[in-house]
Amino acid sequence: MTKDELSTKQKHPRVVIIGAGFAGLWAARALARKPVDVRLVDRNNYHTFLPLLYQVAAAELQPGDIAYPIRSILRRWPNVHFEMDEVQGINFATRTVDTAHGPIAFDYLILGAGSAPHFFGVPGAAEHAFSLKRISSATTLRNHILRCFERASREVDAARRQQLLTFVVVGCGPTGIEYAGALSELVHGPLAKDFRALNFDDVRITILEARDCAVPGMPERVNGYVLNRLKKMKVEVRTQTSVTRVTPETVELQDGTAIRTETVVWTAGVQGIPEARIWGLPTARNGQVTVLPTLQVPEHPEVYVAGDLASVANSGHSMPMVAPVAMQQGVSAAQNILRQIGGRELKIFRYRNPGMMVTIGRHAAAVYVRGLLFTGFVAWMLWLGVHVAKLIGFRNRMLVLINWAWEYCFYGPAIRIILPSEAPEASPSVEPSTPAKSS
Amino acid sequence: MTKDELSTKQKHPRVVIIGAGFAGLWAARALARKPVDVRLVDRNNYHTFLPLLYQVAAAELQPGDIAYPIRSILRRWPNVHFEMDEVQGINFATRTVDTAHGPIAFDYLILGAGSAPHFFGVPGAAEHAFSLKRISSATTLRNHILRCFERASREVDAARRQQLLTFVVVGCGPTGIEYAGALSELVHGPLAKDFRALNFDDVRITILEARDCAVPGMPERVNGYVLNRLKKMKVEVRTQTSVTRVTPETVELQDGTAIRTETVVWTAGVQGIPEARIWGLPTARNGQVTVLPTLQVPEHPEVYVAGDLASVANSGHSMPMVAPVAMQQGVSAAQNILRQIGGRELKIFRYRNPGMMVTIGRHAAAVYVRGLLFTGFVAWMLWLGVHVAKLIGFRNRMLVLINWAWEYCFYGPAIRIILPSEAPEASPSVEPSTPAKSS
Repeated sequence: MTKDELSTKQKHPRVVIIGAGFAGLWAARALARKPVDVRLVDRNNYHTFLPLLYQVAAAELQPGDIAYPIRSILRRWPNVHFEMDEVQGINFATRTVDTAHGPIAFDYLILGAGSAPHFFGVPGAAEHAFSLKRISSATTLRNHILRCFERASREVDAARRQQLLTFVVVGCGPTGIEYAGALSELVHGPLAKDFRALNFDDVRITILEARDCAVPGMPERVNGYVLNRLKKMKVEVRTQTSVTRVTPETVELQDGTAIRTETVVWTAGVQGIPEARIWGLPTARNGQVTVLPTLQVPEHPEVYVAGDLASVANSGHSMPMVAPVAMQQGVSAAQNILRQIGGRELKIFRYRNPGMMVTIGRHAAAVYVRGLLFTGFVAWMLWLGVHVAKLIGFRNRMLVLINWAWEYCFYGPAIRIILPSEAPEASPSVEPSTPAKSS
Repeated sequence: MTKDELSTKQKHPRVVIIGAGFAGLWAARALARKPVDVRLVDRNNYHTFLPLLYQVAAAELQPGDIAYPIRSILRRWPNVHFEMDEVQGINFATRTVDTAHGPIAFDYLILGAGSAPHFFGVPGAAEHAFSLKRISSATTLRNHILRCFERASREVDAARRQQLLTFVVVGCGPTGIEYAGALSELVHGPLAKDFRALNFDDVRITILEARDCAVPGMPERVNGYVLNRLKKMKVEVRTQTSVTRVTPETVELQDGTAIRTETVVWTAGVQGIPEARIWGLPTARNGQVTVLPTLQVPEHPEVYVAGDLASVANSGHSMPMVAPVAMQQGVSAAQNILRQIGGRELKIFRYRNPGMMVTIGRHAAAVYVRGLLFTGFVAWMLWLGVHVAKLIGFRNRMLVLINWAWEYCFYGPAIRIILPSEAPEASPSVEPSTPAKSS
């Protein structure tokens, strides 16, 4: 780079993007090859395809199948630079992001730092329940479940064995439904073949839901279909059942009873990451940052929020925390920054709903697009196509497809290995919001 | 199972196999559907295809590509049962194996517990050097190397940057040669594209060898070919260079000089697992158990040793610690046990050498079969075929082939993700012999 090029480059406004999830990556893409200097910051060096994370936790996919190196994505975008770093704070006065490795100055900032599990203050939930927000928590859960079966296979006490083979999913939203379905297939498929000495009538998979089962954005009549499928897959669903406490050995319910289990998977709630409040951003009760319809933070017009972390004011109803919203908001924030730089009028974010889908096992799904509800095998094929197509990276797509084709034909996930999963030293810093259950 | 079947079964002699590596698995296969009750014990629930472990450490394969669930392998063998357990001792008087979950009685015992790195007492090596004996150590090394590049990309001090980009492999045997080659391809291929701001002339990959580079079992003339290939791949080889100390920041040499590096990969030595001595077995200086030519432990004719842990007395020359030896010894031990049960004469183990092969990067290898030496691309294709064919499990084979085909065509390993790798709670117990470097 010559000095001239350098000085030209330095004149470009600096856009810092925090988080390489769907919001951050799509924002970076919208800013690629534009006259801005983009810095994308993430604590990991990979993007995680979160919609398929539950399959890692059900031993159907390998972690690497849903992770893609960020630097490889950025190769094609010469003005976008990656910083593997942990954000520690934001200084709005000096316009700098404070990181573990020093400050990064910005002219514009896009926050796409995502969400964390929301335990609604239920005692013991943060400490003893598993969650599905990061690859490390998914592999920890996978290892725990496989180890429960190993332990059950040598347990002589019938009550203890039953406890080891009881799996409770809290929350009957899309993640809870999808994970319970995948877990049922893992258990009653390959694990039933692997553990010949165990009685699989002892296995109990239960979904607990404080209200009613519901897939947000879908018509109510889909619920009957979902409940019917879950029942066929030996998943028990208990609605109007609130959890009051989680201990290492039980989950306690509002009616005074308790279920003996060592496996509680918490999918009941999601909130904006708790760091947002610490960083001094205006947050709502669920931890999301309240932003203007332009996705700008009030009083900080150079700061935008996109994805799970954003709560758009005056949008009438809250938007679901799903990938399409994050992608579209990431692009909107980026385009508004370009408009702001050019002195043009900003645009209000409007969500174009591409439809909702939820899968229940390997043959069944529900897809709701433009007022049409599809269920069953056709819906499952649609779901498969959409998710595989959206996986970043052709190689990943190919591997995921082969994995699926293999399982579909031979019904035997081959990833049932208890691999070392979580190391304090492996990630550059520890996220306070993700509970890690040590087993 | 009826009572009759049970009592018939209980009359069968019990064979306990410790370790589900190549020796243990092949022994189990030789005992499948024979009138014996087989218990296969391993601390992990998966078999590791160790010959390709270095590719996990070079981000070319995912851990799951070289691991296969043991219970799935045993499905076809009704008389072979798996116990995921940690051996704590062997009581030869009562004929029981003591494990973390209680004693397991045996009539016959096959020890295939494998090997551990041998540091020859070099100070600091066990604490600060990486090794390639387990999946967790391979992913720890992979994460460390990727993190070195992330750190180098933001390092302003030139000497510190150079130190981060210096990688030292100790030992110029097959593992050292293969890993240095794979590392060079990772670094000068995809990483050079990912880290555009780094000067890759700063990268230094060095093999240190106390004696001369040598591939055991191969004619000497192969060494010129190997050294020439490594030189082309920018790998520096320093022979007659002994390491005297490893620190977190340097590796010190016998000539008084030191190389500044945070990455020392120890492939210089292998020994029998240190537990063998603790279990009261007669061990040689390198920790191997000295066994009779029938693979029996002297004074314990019901105990056999196979694989890396076995040192066969009076065999003239020591056998290499490679997979073919382990497989053949596992089968031999199993067959001798069947002979012993039947009151027939035991057979002496004789190694049928299938040939030696070593690969240097993705286009080159050296294969020595029946007195013929092949080098170059043809040898590499041979190497590829043999290794892929030997990977247990058709699905794994398919995925590994696709990974390779992809990399071969597009030269971009896609597994360069720094995933959480090592958890104390993830493996049921900690192996004392594998050093874990915290970075």
